[in-house]
Amino acid sequence: MAQVGVVLSGCGFLDGSEIHEAVLTLLALQKSGASYQCLAPDIDQMHVVDHVAGEPAAGETRNVLKEAARIARGDIKALGDVSAKDFDALVFPGGYGAAKNLSNFATEGTSSEVEPSVAQFVQEVHSAGKPIGFICISPAIAARLLPGVKLTIGSDPGTAAALEEMGAEHIECPANDFVEDSEQRVLSTPAYMCDAPLPEIAEGIEKLVKRLSALAG
Amino acid sequence: MAQVGVVLSGCGFLDGSEIHEAVLTLLALQKSGASYQCLAPDIDQMHVVDHVAGEPAAGETRNVLKEAARIARGDIKALGDVSAKDFDALVFPGGYGAAKNLSNFATEGTSSEVEPSVAQFVQEVHSAGKPIGFICISPAIAARLLPGVKLTIGSDPGTAAALEEMGAEHIECPANDFVEDSEQRVLSTPAYMCDAPLPEIAEGIEKLVKRLSALAG
Repeated sequence: MAQVGVVLSGCGFLDGSEIHEAVLTLLALQKSGASYQCLAPDIDQMHVVDHVAGEPAAGETRNVLKEAARIARGDIKALGDVSAKDFDALVFPGGYGAAKNLSNFATEGTSSEVEPSVAQFVQEVHSAGKPIGFICISPAIAARLLPGVKLTIGSDPGTAAALEEMGAEHIECPANDFVEDSEQRVLSTPAYMCDAPLPEIAEGIEKLVKRLSALAG
Repeated sequence: MAQVGVVLSGCGFLDGSEIHEAVLTLLALQKSGASYQCLAPDIDQMHVVDHVAGEPAAGETRNVLKEAARIARGDIKALGDVSAKDFDALVFPGGYGAAKNLSNFATEGTSSEVEPSVAQFVQEVHSAGKPIGFICISPAIAARLLPGVKLTIGSDPGTAAALEEMGAEHIECPANDFVEDSEQRVLSTPAYMCDAPLPEIAEGIEKLVKRLSALAG
């Protein structure tokens, strides 16, 4: 049974993992017959956003691992406590946390960097020839770390241009499908980067995860 | 198109809404063709639980509405700002938040009370003959408010006995199914009250929501 690491970035689309995408990823993994372990870096979030106001909440700090544990129902490990060799594949749900906590793409754009423990983990998994899935905005991590990677963030022209400037090849894709880079073994689906109904987002994630599990198995 | 109110209780199974159940409820509602509005009381949580440690976090307070907004992607209304007549049905995902914030069943058991704004809303919707769905532990709310209601929390003997002492009739049910009280128009499914895989929980929630939408339509 393939063991897949699900890398979370908090809990809430404005400052952490996009919750719907994360849950649909876990559901699709179980449906595909894969086993999974939720993972997150043990670091503070860039900030905390009040999800009613849509604005940063002054004076609050939250830890990425502890908040991600809400999605994982407590069954989560710090990235620093696991080894890349224990995983057959990785998958990154989206949400601003991927661009604020796992990388700083939200603020630094084309000159963004990936959080060091995340970068090292991705490089180790990728170097071993294992497949990695990137959902929503998380392909920004792939664009920085894997030169020339083919990926999708849907059809947003500004974001697509930024990822191409970082060295990726962007391919347009609807929410209910995914893009595969067979050479780099990288899969991506746009999810909430498209203004699509939840069932279409679920379909795209399920297709990506099914293919990821097949490649990992 | 039926308009369904989804009553959330925070964000995280130990102190708020069970996230998987909430997301699967929203997905099932969209699949069923219903429209929905996420709702929550604008009150502080009973407490905040560190979901890594599984223990209360000292000195932290969080607001039920603001945390629930993470699941709702910001599209949420306070219970006090809406009218029961604008909804054709309600559904309550589970998680300890239903027993700590929407009621105090977690601490008071058979002598528990329902949070006043929640109690009033449920009574108004129920009195109008509209259907209500209760997932996981949230049937504790139905047991307190709707005398004689037939419901399920799965098969946990202690919890079932408590709800029967409160006046409900408990019916055993697996995670992938639901129980219907046709007279009171109350549906329930055990979800994570059973130690079941996520696809079975998704199946139970989807069946409940499909029936709820049909009754509401």
